[in-house]
Amino acid sequence: METLRAMLTCRTTAQFVPGAVISTKTQKDLLRVAMSAPFAGKESPRHFLVIREAPARGDLAELLWAETSIQSASIGIVVCADNRSQKHMGQWVVDCAAASENIVLAARDMELGSAWIRVFPFKSRMSAVGKFLRLPHYVTPFSAIFLGRSRKPLRKLGASADESKIHLEQW
Amino acid sequence: METLRAMLTCRTTAQFVPGAVISTKTQKDLLRVAMSAPFAGKESPRHFLVIREAPARGDLAELLWAETSIQSASIGIVVCADNRSQKHMGQWVVDCAAASENIVLAARDMELGSAWIRVFPFKSRMSAVGKFLRLPHYVTPFSAIFLGRSRKPLRKLGASADESKIHLEQW
Repeated sequence: METLRAMLTCRTTAQFVPGAVISTKTQKDLLRVAMSAPFAGKESPRHFLVIREAPARGDLAELLWAETSIQSASIGIVVCADNRSQKHMGQWVVDCAAASENIVLAARDMELGSAWIRVFPFKSRMSAVGKFLRLPHYVTPFSAIFLGRSRKPLRKLGASADESKIHLEQW
Repeated sequence: METLRAMLTCRTTAQFVPGAVISTKTQKDLLRVAMSAPFAGKESPRHFLVIREAPARGDLAELLWAETSIQSASIGIVVCADNRSQKHMGQWVVDCAAASENIVLAARDMELGSAWIRVFPFKSRMSAVGKFLRLPHYVTPFSAIFLGRSRKPLRKLGASADESKIHLEQW
């Protein structure tokens, strides 16, 4: 799919088709583009936890989201950062957000539905997810992205730009 | 261009061809996809300042970057956030990072070079850019993205995934 079309039609999926399979090839492609997102410094602080097992995926969804509808997603990817090498706190947030955006855009490109659930900046979610996934103390979870087949057809058209948010030369 | 290819081959441009023109149509497309990135809450906090005038663009580049090589970029887009409606501080960083990623990916798609200069999390840069662009006190600058024709050919191939950063089910 064309890049701009993926961007304009990418929206959160609320309900997934239970039992749909995401191949390991697709999973690999999603992780490859996630790692390809920009980052500060010499080495990316990002790590990716892939949750394929149904009970763990369901528990994670429950931990983050009152709705149970995303529990039927096929896989979950938790984007985290190893903060040991961070020179400037806050850079890891930018790095992980860019990677998360690549994952949901690539999913749209592949006609998959996605739900990017924010873990950061919610301290209670960050702590709960860290415990659940047994993350080391120097690793901070940023997002949990659920992926699968959407029950509803994916969006075909994007909205136009909001001119009131564009400023020329100065505010 | 295919979405995944844009992601795998998008890298920072260090030197731009002076005097290259970015059309208003291209500029509009870049802003449209930036606004199309996900955000938390009911309304996006993002605003976009477009710097087309050469002296201002040069001054902004100088403010952020010791190298003068990016001053010859054709336009600059400063991604900012209006924080008045922020329920959870930190959400705007995620919103602005996703929009910035869309801008550089769309630029790669259109065979344009881009340099995403981080303003956040550097307090001195945030303050300097805010003053320079006369941002209201409730608006925080996040990134300055310089766009134009790259002097060097854009990258054609992406790296493969780093398996050491992938974890299955748990850390």
